[in-house]
Amino acid sequence: MIPIVSIVGKSGSGKTTLLEQVIALLAGRGHRVGTIKHDAHDFEIDYEGKDSWRHKQAGASTVVLASRNKVAVVKDVKTEWSLERLALTFADDHDIIITEGFKKSSFPKIEVVRKACSIKPVCGKDKTLIAIASDIKARGKLPRFDIDDVAGIADFIEERFLPPSHRPPQGDRATLVVDGKVVTLKPFIETLLKESLRGIIKSLKGCANPREIEVKIKK
Amino acid sequence: MIPIVSIVGKSGSGKTTLLEQVIALLAGRGHRVGTIKHDAHDFEIDYEGKDSWRHKQAGASTVVLASRNKVAVVKDVKTEWSLERLALTFADDHDIIITEGFKKSSFPKIEVVRKACSIKPVCGKDKTLIAIASDIKARGKLPRFDIDDVAGIADFIEERFLPPSHRPPQGDRATLVVDGKVVTLKPFIETLLKESLRGIIKSLKGCANPREIEVKIKK
Repeated sequence: MIPIVSIVGKSGSGKTTLLEQVIALLAGRGHRVGTIKHDAHDFEIDYEGKDSWRHKQAGASTVVLASRNKVAVVKDVKTEWSLERLALTFADDHDIIITEGFKKSSFPKIEVVRKACSIKPVCGKDKTLIAIASDIKARGKLPRFDIDDVAGIADFIEERFLPPSHRPPQGDRATLVVDGKVVTLKPFIETLLKESLRGIIKSLKGCANPREIEVKIKK
Repeated sequence: MIPIVSIVGKSGSGKTTLLEQVIALLAGRGHRVGTIKHDAHDFEIDYEGKDSWRHKQAGASTVVLASRNKVAVVKDVKTEWSLERLALTFADDHDIIITEGFKKSSFPKIEVVRKACSIKPVCGKDKTLIAIASDIKARGKLPRFDIDDVAGIADFIEERFLPPSHRPPQGDRATLVVDGKVVTLKPFIETLLKESLRGIIKSLKGCANPREIEVKIKK
């Protein structure tokens, strides 16, 4: 699974501004960064009158726009997708995923606390809170950064989630998703899955030495 | 694999207008319809200044926006994705996918021929051309519809791609993608894949009777 870390905080605390600066630093250091933003409202993304907008208005449940170097998707979902499912479906080719929001997920969180908005972190009692970025000076158990110390926060994320020792191990990684949920695999099961699949697939035409294998089974 | 059919034709022939009417009819009959539009240019989709737009501008390779009932994605790709890969990644939960464009793919095509744009179909010699929608009356081997006969075209698509006999067989379907390409599976191999995976997975916690299984292996 790709490392996921969330930037959380009250509305107006400056999550997006911090996030865009952290993205710029990490991407500049050569990491492939994906972002996922939680939106409580019914967002609009496509331009009225465009072909893809017209498809969607006509009743398509999913609309995809594809060019040589970019893909865009607008998709109706029946139930809210988990962060894991979003990451795995749309951004599994990244080094790290940083989310804006998703304060209720089980992934590690950095909270932005701006004194104009709130004094205490919203996720203060959450065990997944790993750091605070704030314009309020205070002491505490958690690593604390000045709200403008973007380089310090980027370094922290890099050290915690992207150090060489945390990079994907050499060899294959297998990910299993059952009914939309990622299943944690013990090493033995992961090896069994990989070896069984490779064994079945290697005799198929054009599959002698695959880099990526994906199997989907649906009822 | 989900049925895929393409609406092709010269620019200005009326592909989008036909497509939106066909989508409305098919969606109205209860089919879950997805669309994929090929864009030769570098399209814009998000609104300047929005949070997701700011993430992308800052250097994120993939940006996902997620709400309770909708997901949107803008993603950089290193090489152009095939129609199969787009369909399988973004719209595998649909009954049919209709594309606008993709005239070079190997999927079945319906060409819109409007006399103001062209007299002969661009895909006239293509064996994957299965019908023509036109305002020019002519005879030929292929089924031919009046350009405004939306119901006739929707019926044709439904009969050809969505009749009961063409619906997915009872039981599981397995799809295998190797290095981004869909591999055609003989029934024996498909069964072997399904049974092996189910055998390995059924003992895992919470996986006794899964509806959907997805495995990804990456080097």
